[in-house]
Amino acid sequence: MIYELHYWPTIQGRGEFVRLALEEAGVRYADVARSDDGEDAMLAFMDNERVKTPPFAPPFLKARNLLIGQTANILLFLGEKHGLAPAPSAGRLWTHQLQLTIADLVAEVHDAHHPIAVSLYYEEQRREAKRRAHHLIKERLPKFLGYFESVLERNARGPKYLVGGRLTYADLSAYQLVDGLVYAFPKAMARLSKRFPLLMALHARIPQRPRIAAYLASGRRIGNNEDDIFRRYPELDE
Amino acid sequence: MIYELHYWPTIQGRGEFVRLALEEAGVRYADVARSDDGEDAMLAFMDNERVKTPPFAPPFLKARNLLIGQTANILLFLGEKHGLAPAPSAGRLWTHQLQLTIADLVAEVHDAHHPIAVSLYYEEQRREAKRRAHHLIKERLPKFLGYFESVLERNARGPKYLVGGRLTYADLSAYQLVDGLVYAFPKAMARLSKRFPLLMALHARIPQRPRIAAYLASGRRIGNNEDDIFRRYPELDE
Repeated sequence: MIYELHYWPTIQGRGEFVRLALEEAGVRYADVARSDDGEDAMLAFMDNERVKTPPFAPPFLKARNLLIGQTANILLFLGEKHGLAPAPSAGRLWTHQLQLTIADLVAEVHDAHHPIAVSLYYEEQRREAKRRAHHLIKERLPKFLGYFESVLERNARGPKYLVGGRLTYADLSAYQLVDGLVYAFPKAMARLSKRFPLLMALHARIPQRPRIAAYLASGRRIGNNEDDIFRRYPELDE
Repeated sequence: MIYELHYWPTIQGRGEFVRLALEEAGVRYADVARSDDGEDAMLAFMDNERVKTPPFAPPFLKARNLLIGQTANILLFLGEKHGLAPAPSAGRLWTHQLQLTIADLVAEVHDAHHPIAVSLYYEEQRREAKRRAHHLIKERLPKFLGYFESVLERNARGPKYLVGGRLTYADLSAYQLVDGLVYAFPKAMARLSKRFPLLMALHARIPQRPRIAAYLASGRRIGNNEDDIFRRYPELDE
C-alpha cells in the first residue's frame, strides 16, 4: 500500500506537518495534488457524495480504505502506525495534546495575516493584520514558545525531545512551527529565540536526522512563500 | 476514582464539551474550579513546575495519575473509556476528526468577537469584530454547518447521529456548537437553520436524553453570558 496525501500543491501549509512525519517514518506516499491533475483529483474527492467520511478541508490522507482528515488526527494515526508516538495511552495522549497546542498557534499565526476573513486578500485586511501581528509577537509567541520550552525543561528523560526519550511527531511539528516563525518574523524571532534555547536546539537538531535532511534537500520540500501560513511581510515583523 | 475537571467557573466555554460528555457517560466528576478556592487550585496546577505534562490552558482533566489537556484530546480519552466513540480505529478517528472540525469553528466564533487579541476587551476591537462577524455569518457558518449536515446525510446508518448508529461525543459537541450559535446569532441562525434540518433535528434531540435533560435543568449548567465564547452582541448578528 502507498499512502495518498492530498494537500494544496504550492505551499507547505498544514500538509507539511504530515509530510515531515511520512518522511521520517520512511514510508512510501504519493503527494497527490502535486502530480498532473492531482489538485483536481483532490477537489473531486472532497465533492464526491459517495465519500461517507468527507474531509472538511485538506490535508487528508488515504490509507487503503481509510480516509483521515484534520492534521493532528492524521498524525495521531501515523504516530501509532509508525512508532512516532509512545504506544501507552498516557504518552499517546500527551503527544497529541502537544500537537493540538501547536495547531492552535499555527491557526493564530495564519490569522495574523488574515484577521478578518480567509476570503479576503491580505491587502484588504492589512491594517487589522498589523494590529493582530503586534499582539501575536508581544503576547502569544512568548506564551506558546515559553510553554514548549518548559515542556522540554520538565521532560524527565532530558530536553532533547518533547515526549520521553525518543522522537515523536510532536518534535517534527515543533521544528516546522519554529522554522515557519523564523521565516515569517526574522526580527522578532532573533530577539525572542534567546529565551527559548531548548526549543531552538530542537529546531536545529531535527534537520540533521538523515531522512529529514534528505527530504529538506529534495524537490519534495516546497519553499516558503507568501501564499502560505507563515508569510514574510516585513511590516508585520517587529 | 472521581474525575477532576478544571475549567473557568463562570462560562460554558470549551469546558462545556467535556462536561456534556461526562454527564452523558454518567460518571462522577468534580468541577474543581467551581468549588471554593477551586480556581486558585486550577491556576496553581498550571504553574506547578513539578507537573511534568502541563496543560497550556484549561480545560484539563485529571484521571488518577493522568493529566489530559486540550478539549478534543480529553474527549478522545473519554470516548474510548466510556463508549462515547466507536472502538475500531476507523470510527474512532472519524469521530475525532469531526470533533477537531467543531473545535475549528468554535475558535472562529471566538475570534469573531476577538479578531485582534484575547488580551483586549471586545470594545477595543469592535469595528474589526463587526467585519469579521459578517464573514463568519456569510461564509464560514454556512460552510461548516453545511458540512455537518452532509455528514449526517451520508451516514449509512441514518441521519440521527454523526457517526454510525449510536451517540458519540461528536454529537454532544455538535449540539453545544449549534446551541451556542443560536444564542449568539439568533437572527442569522433563524435564517440559516432552515438549510440544515438534520443538524437542527440533532440539536433538538440531544436535550431529550435523560442524563442531558437532567444536567441542563440542574445548577451545574452555566447559563450563556457575554464572557463566554458564544456571545450575544446584537450588532454582530445579521
